[in-house]
Amino acid sequence: MDMVKFFHMNGGIGDASYSSNSGLQRTGIMKTKGIIEQAISDLCHARSNVNFPKTLVIADLGCSSGPNTLLVGSMVINAVTKTCLEMGLKSPDIQINLNDLPTSDFNIVFIALQEFQNNSTNDQLRDVHGQPACYFTGVPGSFFGRLFPMKSLNFVHFSYSLQWLSQLPELEEINKGNIYLSCTTPESVSRAYFEQFQTDFLGFLRCRSEEMMGGGRMVLTLAGRTTDDPRGEESYHLWRPLAMALQDMVFEGLVEEEKFDSFNLPQYTTSPTEIMNLVKTEGSFVLDPVEIFDVNWKAWKREKNDNDASEVKQLTEDYGVGHGVSKAIRAGIEPLVANHFGEAILDDVFERYGQIITATSSKETQKLVSITISLTRKM
Amino acid sequence: MDMVKFFHMNGGIGDASYSSNSGLQRTGIMKTKGIIEQAISDLCHARSNVNFPKTLVIADLGCSSGPNTLLVGSMVINAVTKTCLEMGLKSPDIQINLNDLPTSDFNIVFIALQEFQNNSTNDQLRDVHGQPACYFTGVPGSFFGRLFPMKSLNFVHFSYSLQWLSQLPELEEINKGNIYLSCTTPESVSRAYFEQFQTDFLGFLRCRSEEMMGGGRMVLTLAGRTTDDPRGEESYHLWRPLAMALQDMVFEGLVEEEKFDSFNLPQYTTSPTEIMNLVKTEGSFVLDPVEIFDVNWKAWKREKNDNDASEVKQLTEDYGVGHGVSKAIRAGIEPLVANHFGEAILDDVFERYGQIITATSSKETQKLVSITISLTRKM
Repeated sequence: MDMVKFFHMNGGIGDASYSSNSGLQRTGIMKTKGIIEQAISDLCHARSNVNFPKTLVIADLGCSSGPNTLLVGSMVINAVTKTCLEMGLKSPDIQINLNDLPTSDFNIVFIALQEFQNNSTNDQLRDVHGQPACYFTGVPGSFFGRLFPMKSLNFVHFSYSLQWLSQLPELEEINKGNIYLSCTTPESVSRAYFEQFQTDFLGFLRCRSEEMMGGGRMVLTLAGRTTDDPRGEESYHLWRPLAMALQDMVFEGLVEEEKFDSFNLPQYTTSPTEIMNLVKTEGSFVLDPVEIFDVNWKAWKREKNDNDASEVKQLTEDYGVGHGVSKAIRAGIEPLVANHFGEAILDDVFERYGQIITATSSKETQKLVSITISLTRKM
Repeated sequence: MDMVKFFHMNGGIGDASYSSNSGLQRTGIMKTKGIIEQAISDLCHARSNVNFPKTLVIADLGCSSGPNTLLVGSMVINAVTKTCLEMGLKSPDIQINLNDLPTSDFNIVFIALQEFQNNSTNDQLRDVHGQPACYFTGVPGSFFGRLFPMKSLNFVHFSYSLQWLSQLPELEEINKGNIYLSCTTPESVSRAYFEQFQTDFLGFLRCRSEEMMGGGRMVLTLAGRTTDDPRGEESYHLWRPLAMALQDMVFEGLVEEEKFDSFNLPQYTTSPTEIMNLVKTEGSFVLDPVEIFDVNWKAWKREKNDNDASEVKQLTEDYGVGHGVSKAIRAGIEPLVANHFGEAILDDVFERYGQIITATSSKETQKLVSITISLTRKM
């Protein structure tokens, strides 16, 4: 499967869109605010007054198309302004490059950007002479390859995309009854998944190491796990109900068994230990201590007090957690499911998925484990 | 009227789209190929082996969304590759920033870009190690304001956009019976038009002078006139038939006279003398001799031997020139006309326009005067 062609969030701003169902990612990004601010502060302090750059070049990779797209840019602008004020320095110009796959809806992002720039509360977008001090670009392309010229970036941000693999690994055995790694997954399948993640992650780090200037910073958040075993329950409890829904549809003759057997999700939830080893293997970056935190599934529905005052269209109805999670997961993986099984099953399978979540999941498991790492490009 | 909101080419790839009706601009750009190549060659030769830049940063402003969008990028890549080969130097990385208004269809551009980059004939997009050597971004915004950080650009290209004004000037008198400057236009109206163009053009140069590095080059093509009098026939023969069509509709009670009287096109066709004076006034650029050339209206329909082998979807039917020009003009100004008169008149007015062109225009006048200037940013 061509991931660049088929893997993208649901576009538009409708009820089924990623734009309307990205509360969890938003909550996750808000939880890393302190780490992002610290990285920006370090970046500014590491440069003396003399060689302070005239322009800070930022890249937000896999930025998506929705209310979260400009969230990180906004955080970075505030952090730079605050740090420079503390240091008694004039803020540099900031260029923010927003990246996602070419199939992502950049038109919506660019219209939102216009409103963002016109918003009178964004005074920090202009310098003391009223000149713009922030410049935005859209960069279409896969972050598994090079996106920017050599040594052109000062700061890279990346959240909730790198658990997705560049392709589904070739599997020697059938992952019977599963759609991702579970305790019944054969060892060879689990190994193939890790090897694909390893290849992707090392390739990702190599590309960024070429694009980033020495001393540049990168903050990276991805869905992960706390345990060493990739087949543990922690990362499968979100996918087991989807496997159960599909299995039910096989029993009812609505989905072919062979189709079900050959469907596996191209994602991998990594652990802090794996990440640390891979960063060490690649060798271009110094790694700060890894941070782990949970995001409650309820965050799929926008929480009112999420420490962010901007107006964003989000789900406001008081859905059950199963229904909400189902909508959010659907916004993320609908093109993958439709490409494998056809569009006809979509409503049915995601309805069943929501019901199974509501019926079976416990409060203890209703959370997404997130891993955040903060890296510095060696000089 | 908010030009950023209402002024944009017709989107999509359908029969009425700008994408399908941009043959004239294409022919115009092809005619400036030599000037672009010379500017790139000068740019490369002006730098010694030692400080040859690792990355050449290019901006194509007002790039539109269609088959012409990647034409200039392609020319620049070829010119850089050829020049560096002659100089015995390794080609630098090239970053090409594609700019247009936020309402332009960037999604189509980014999909086309993917095909362009995957095309096996574009080997120069990769360096000897197979690494990408060309990076593309989309930059949404008005070129009347700043779009890029200080001193960040090496080469700027711009074609067939700067005759459009940032806004319609305030007019003290009614431009009775006209929709642009003609021999019956009052002097005050003509002066107001020039003053708006002057303000826009000087502001444009000032923004670019801030964004460009010393020694950077800019090639700029715009629809213009050879004569000194802005009210001469040369630039009105494209618009007179549209005024006649609207006037007919006033007579028939299909358009209100007041509406017609208050409709004026926000464009200005300048002369070489005016351009030279304005560049001198702004003061940041050295100007090469101004080039003037004609593009025959027939070029709205794609010509087969236009010195460019790339596959582009264009009109292939053998339309009469009136019908073809009408489609092309409609693709460019439909949103302006619809915003002023309502959408209901569109089919009727552009049908009449085409018929009047066919009936009244002579072979001598069926051409668009184009002015190309090549500028160097002072050090």
